[in-house]
Amino acid sequence: MYKPNKKMSKLILENSPEIFRSSTRIERTPGSVTRDILKVIDTPGMISFAGGLPDDTLFPIEDLKNIFETSVSKKGAKLFQYADTQGHSDLRAWIADRYYPGSSADEILLTSGSQQALDLLSRYFIDEGSAILLERPSYLGAIQVFSSYAPTFIGIHYTEEGPDLEELKYALASSSEKPKFFYCIPDFQNPSSYSYSLEIRNSLSKLLLENGVPILEDTAYRELYFEEKLPTSLCELGPEHTISIGTFSKTLAPGLRVGWIKAPKKILKDLIVQKQSVDLHSPTLNQELVYGFVSSSKYEKHLSLIRKTYRKKSEHTFVCLQNNFGNSLPLRISKGGLFYWLEFPQEIDTDLLFQKCLEKGLAAVPGSSFFVGKPERNHLRWNFSNASEEETKLGVERLYKVYKEISER
Amino acid sequence: MYKPNKKMSKLILENSPEIFRSSTRIERTPGSVTRDILKVIDTPGMISFAGGLPDDTLFPIEDLKNIFETSVSKKGAKLFQYADTQGHSDLRAWIADRYYPGSSADEILLTSGSQQALDLLSRYFIDEGSAILLERPSYLGAIQVFSSYAPTFIGIHYTEEGPDLEELKYALASSSEKPKFFYCIPDFQNPSSYSYSLEIRNSLSKLLLENGVPILEDTAYRELYFEEKLPTSLCELGPEHTISIGTFSKTLAPGLRVGWIKAPKKILKDLIVQKQSVDLHSPTLNQELVYGFVSSSKYEKHLSLIRKTYRKKSEHTFVCLQNNFGNSLPLRISKGGLFYWLEFPQEIDTDLLFQKCLEKGLAAVPGSSFFVGKPERNHLRWNFSNASEEETKLGVERLYKVYKEISER
Repeated sequence: MYKPNKKMSKLILENSPEIFRSSTRIERTPGSVTRDILKVIDTPGMISFAGGLPDDTLFPIEDLKNIFETSVSKKGAKLFQYADTQGHSDLRAWIADRYYPGSSADEILLTSGSQQALDLLSRYFIDEGSAILLERPSYLGAIQVFSSYAPTFIGIHYTEEGPDLEELKYALASSSEKPKFFYCIPDFQNPSSYSYSLEIRNSLSKLLLENGVPILEDTAYRELYFEEKLPTSLCELGPEHTISIGTFSKTLAPGLRVGWIKAPKKILKDLIVQKQSVDLHSPTLNQELVYGFVSSSKYEKHLSLIRKTYRKKSEHTFVCLQNNFGNSLPLRISKGGLFYWLEFPQEIDTDLLFQKCLEKGLAAVPGSSFFVGKPERNHLRWNFSNASEEETKLGVERLYKVYKEISER
Repeated sequence: MYKPNKKMSKLILENSPEIFRSSTRIERTPGSVTRDILKVIDTPGMISFAGGLPDDTLFPIEDLKNIFETSVSKKGAKLFQYADTQGHSDLRAWIADRYYPGSSADEILLTSGSQQALDLLSRYFIDEGSAILLERPSYLGAIQVFSSYAPTFIGIHYTEEGPDLEELKYALASSSEKPKFFYCIPDFQNPSSYSYSLEIRNSLSKLLLENGVPILEDTAYRELYFEEKLPTSLCELGPEHTISIGTFSKTLAPGLRVGWIKAPKKILKDLIVQKQSVDLHSPTLNQELVYGFVSSSKYEKHLSLIRKTYRKKSEHTFVCLQNNFGNSLPLRISKGGLFYWLEFPQEIDTDLLFQKCLEKGLAAVPGSSFFVGKPERNHLRWNFSNASEEETKLGVERLYKVYKEISER
């Protein structure tokens, strides 16, 4: 048998230019800071508020076990064979029915979490240099995947009521290229936990329609309201020019990796071809487990339980923050979603704060990662859904200690 | 509440240029003909040999049920929470150990089937216009995803012993841009069912190393040998310049969507960031099911059963083809993989043959789809792993009838 000549191949590899020559995409795709942080949090003694992790004690594991058993007995090999790219038709019908009144299963494509939805939509819309609009701050997983397609970002300030419409008007009027879309999270945004008022939703939908710019509405946190439901979705206000994406990661279990895109059929056809090309289809079994649970009578009760639990966690976090920081931070209770967006005084650099926190066994995400363009540097994203009450108490105390140290220098 | 002004939005949408303006990628991504065919095969009376579908009566469903139960009881919520992007560490170690002697779990990235491996590698290597080498014919899912990144394809003729090395030398010498990689399926290729001899493997590995061109080796069918094992893999011959991809779709169950990339660590690091950006991670549950089965004592027996079953199916198909076509086609028995690559006389256009076959309730894939550049038009890809003996007999009879009709015109 041929033995590879190790000496020769070493010689060739050492004296030649790089054999694996990467595309320009590799340089421009930022690593995700939260996923990097996830690797640190296994350090003993570390308390983490960094991930957007649901409380996994709420996962309906016994129900999923039962659904698995029933489904496998009923459908057998079909669950393990190649399947249709568009995904589980009953689950698509359920999503259409629940979230998009008047639409049908044909307008839904199932994806591997909403992260894949963002990738497929990037593939659909973005050429190198394409202008795209998004909120400042925005979801960093979106910034990461968009960046890999090299668009020109136009950031619109996200205020407590919604995006600054004057800024948006100015951007629409002044951009030399018409933006391909406006990406937004109108419901308990990650990271800010802000939502759009109904008034802003109406005006924004109208403004973008008039300018011929489609909306990509990310509804990841829409079900996680603790008090009252959110105003009408942008997709319902303007289905002709809005594409909506969603996920079961926050309402059921992220590890199943089931999300979706709702888009006009004409667009969806092309998105399905893109989905084919990137992974043929998502696993049927996972879609079946999701469908089994959400279509049962247990889902509403489950959602109520999540809302109640997270509300309690949000309130507890708020109390801990107040007890420690008093009036030194502008605090507002989170009424939905998974996060507090802590705003420190301008002179506090949260990248530095974050490093000091790590040394004290505490992880959260510095705000700078969430901005396209020039980052604001005085925020910290704090997740409240995963940690226990005790951990939260301890974590906030550690945070305050580090804050005091830095601010007294 | 605001009611969207339907009349106004209709007016705007009708009188303005297209609101959803797609990227150039959409135009250049071909639909997959096999996946389109998969939609036709549910027509009553249709017998299909079109998909690369494993025989789903072989799926070890009872075992997977038991693994699910045990794993969920043991690992609980962890299986449903967000997880590491690189994937299940025990499964990665198992893959490294079995397929890549001397390598470690650090060099493996788990993907959603090997189709996603191809997408991630496209992201890594291909800029618009990048030259890439691949076999003629080649796997059409690879052609589809590569196309979406707009490379310049350089096709190398795949003969019964392997790729034409003279053609490859010429291509390496004459291409104005050094190719980013050579993509190949050296083991029972889809569609041709050809394999590389050991001699060709050695010469090709050496030639590409000397030219500083990495190899992407697709091992999807490597376990599906019916008689003797295949020669040493290209990755084992030259691990420094070879990236290998694999899948459990053919050996276990495609619906689980578990595949992998084995690459030098330095490259893998960047591939993990790309994987993060496209879907965060693949579902843990599916990786756990695969690991539970392949690491058990049952896997080797299962592989033996698959090989024995497919060998029998291949032989039966061969007999049916001989009984009908006699000497009118050059027939050679398939000794592995999933396909027959039927070569018709030059004057037979298999795109036309395919259309006529559909009318007679028979589906297989016309060869033209598998070629970059100018397609050869006289082949038909025939899958033998999925149909029953009776269906195969009937299917081949139908094929022969259509062939006679066309050739006698």
